[in-house]
Amino acid sequence: MKKCIVLKGDIVWTERPERFEYQENGYLVLEGDKIQGVCSEAPKGEYETYDFSGSLIVPGLTDLHMHAPQHQFAGLYMDEELLEWLEKHTFPYESRFSDIDYALRAYRAFISDLKRSATTRAAVFATIHKDATLLLMKLMEESGLSGFVGKVSMDRNSPHFLAEETDRAITEEESFLSESYHFMNVRPIITPRFVPSCSDALLGELGRMARERNLPVQSHLDENVSEIEWVKELCPWSSSYADAYDHFGLLGPTPTIMAHVVWPGDDEIELLAERGVYVAHSPSSNTNLSSGIAPIRKMMECGIRIGLATDIAGGSTLSMLRIITDAVQVSKIRCRYIDQAEKPLRFSEAFYLASKGGGSFFGRVGSFEPGYDGDILVFDDGAFPSILRSELSVPERLEMLSYRHPDAPLAAKFVKGRRIV
Amino acid sequence: MKKCIVLKGDIVWTERPERFEYQENGYLVLEGDKIQGVCSEAPKGEYETYDFSGSLIVPGLTDLHMHAPQHQFAGLYMDEELLEWLEKHTFPYESRFSDIDYALRAYRAFISDLKRSATTRAAVFATIHKDATLLLMKLMEESGLSGFVGKVSMDRNSPHFLAEETDRAITEEESFLSESYHFMNVRPIITPRFVPSCSDALLGELGRMARERNLPVQSHLDENVSEIEWVKELCPWSSSYADAYDHFGLLGPTPTIMAHVVWPGDDEIELLAERGVYVAHSPSSNTNLSSGIAPIRKMMECGIRIGLATDIAGGSTLSMLRIITDAVQVSKIRCRYIDQAEKPLRFSEAFYLASKGGGSFFGRVGSFEPGYDGDILVFDDGAFPSILRSELSVPERLEMLSYRHPDAPLAAKFVKGRRIV
Repeated sequence: MKKCIVLKGDIVWTERPERFEYQENGYLVLEGDKIQGVCSEAPKGEYETYDFSGSLIVPGLTDLHMHAPQHQFAGLYMDEELLEWLEKHTFPYESRFSDIDYALRAYRAFISDLKRSATTRAAVFATIHKDATLLLMKLMEESGLSGFVGKVSMDRNSPHFLAEETDRAITEEESFLSESYHFMNVRPIITPRFVPSCSDALLGELGRMARERNLPVQSHLDENVSEIEWVKELCPWSSSYADAYDHFGLLGPTPTIMAHVVWPGDDEIELLAERGVYVAHSPSSNTNLSSGIAPIRKMMECGIRIGLATDIAGGSTLSMLRIITDAVQVSKIRCRYIDQAEKPLRFSEAFYLASKGGGSFFGRVGSFEPGYDGDILVFDDGAFPSILRSELSVPERLEMLSYRHPDAPLAAKFVKGRRIV
Repeated sequence: MKKCIVLKGDIVWTERPERFEYQENGYLVLEGDKIQGVCSEAPKGEYETYDFSGSLIVPGLTDLHMHAPQHQFAGLYMDEELLEWLEKHTFPYESRFSDIDYALRAYRAFISDLKRSATTRAAVFATIHKDATLLLMKLMEESGLSGFVGKVSMDRNSPHFLAEETDRAITEEESFLSESYHFMNVRPIITPRFVPSCSDALLGELGRMARERNLPVQSHLDENVSEIEWVKELCPWSSSYADAYDHFGLLGPTPTIMAHVVWPGDDEIELLAERGVYVAHSPSSNTNLSSGIAPIRKMMECGIRIGLATDIAGGSTLSMLRIITDAVQVSKIRCRYIDQAEKPLRFSEAFYLASKGGGSFFGRVGSFEPGYDGDILVFDDGAFPSILRSELSVPERLEMLSYRHPDAPLAAKFVKGRRIV
């Protein structure tokens, strides 16, 4: 018989973007690793009960795009734009992961911080280094977190200390996929860095592997104006940056995440929607690197699937609560200055994107509807006294916590029904 | 003889916007309430020494615009724009301060949070209620913080529960000024809410009081496009919103702070520079309320004095470290989308605005140059482990702390040489 768990507290989640569902003084019921539902009365039967009365109970959040090796310098070098930032800092730091001892220290610190964050699922870029990437997967698996990790592939326009020969890039990726298959909660994902740093030959092989092994794919798309110009030069045969990926089978049919998509053309929006691609919206990173503001409202209306992401270390924080409010904030600036037809995201919409929106890439994740995975966060928002607290609804308390205390410590965290914090 | 104090640690500050000064393992020397200087060797003589080795020692920061009575709901109702937000939430909450018991609870909570923040100086709006405003000043004085507090004046276009008759507004302001004069570190400031809520008669009288009593002034200017249109209707005789204040002697000659200035005309920029007005740049609030992005680079180049501000509760955080990075971030978006000639603020520039820039409104405040007031913050950034820390310069550690841990707790805080945290 499966273990049954009940969490008592103030439960809040989104099933649709427009509004919060909530149950004050409610009971969140799990059977094994799955949500059974939310009730207002204590369920009958044998349950292990966690009493979080007065605390907020919310779904685990999904970080749909981030670079684990960059976590060490998150919050530095923020006076630079993307391509300069890559050359001067990111590539040299990533090259250190050829040293497995360094990788161990860096990834231990990263996983320790990620575990204490609001993220339960993540899609992670590692580096080109196979052994370090397998180590990261091992550490992530041991932490109880769940997600996808990719060994980065790059064989051109990269510094000599961080590029592979094409043939080696292909064989290393093949070995990585074979050696990473034994993990249970952390799965491999095909990870071309981005078109500028992958030759046609490599992109073609990665597309083949994705198709043959039925593996998901993650990469970057339309982040920065200069980058897009560069892709035009590199792939003169393609009709767009998205089309370049599509040409190599890297834009579906297997599940695909494209990070950023700040500057999509209408044809690209159509293609992303058609292919069911997930856009990993990274508002903090796109601001820090002066990339721009992605047209999230427009893409939502065109039926594109969207999740939120920190993009560590273009983004400087692991806090998905902060990313939620960042997403609301940049959408307001976009509406004010770029297109008044693109109404700002409401808080509930941004929360939805960070929970059920991005979570759906991982299955039934990010909601408290029956059958969803037991990914749960508990925040003791009473630790931040407010004289208004007794007047606030549960969703208002979540809004206040997210804006005022995005780094609030977790009182508890469950992934797939298992408590890890 | 004055008491002499030495703080040992990693000292960092800005004297000019372009760059940080710093002294690793240095000694910050105070005589009485003033900075004597920074040295690399322990000074000779009798000193009380605080050993903060390994911690960051930075100047106290100035919050140049905030609404103390709104602190209670900071982080709520962020899905609305300025005028709706005022009507639906801000005005009703502010009306509660007619109840002195409520005011005591709310202002105690506010001062407790402000004391633990990075702010040592603040320019504060209270409400129309004289007694509650005097209470706020008393609590602020007792906390050891320093700043200006204004009883808000408003006699038109305000809900009946939060407006005074013009005559009463004038006599109440007169009594407020007389009764608030005994505080030492917290001084009164003339505070018309903004042109839409103050009649010509009231504005004229407030201008007279500022002039006759040689008092500073604070108000709002050019925050929101609809607000500016409204001022045009209300003051058809004025050539601009700034001109409307100027007409009543509320734009100098006494020191003046105008919050926001998101949409200034060229004539207004010229006028603000000429009058030596301080602009309180509130990036977080201007984003939250969809107001826009102030042209800070342009105003800096035109010689306008600028400080940073939280604008609680348009802004949702008391963290001036967060406001510093917000200022950098919105300036990048402005450069990307609005005017590429307006280069983004660098981190050192935003830090300067939050320390010496806004601090100069209060005298010699916000730097560690000799003769500056002893406003000092200490952060134990080692509490946030980073495997890179030993490789980082002191300014890099400050950047990392500001981006990653803007709510980092203080290890110590001094105002005018007196330790208050």
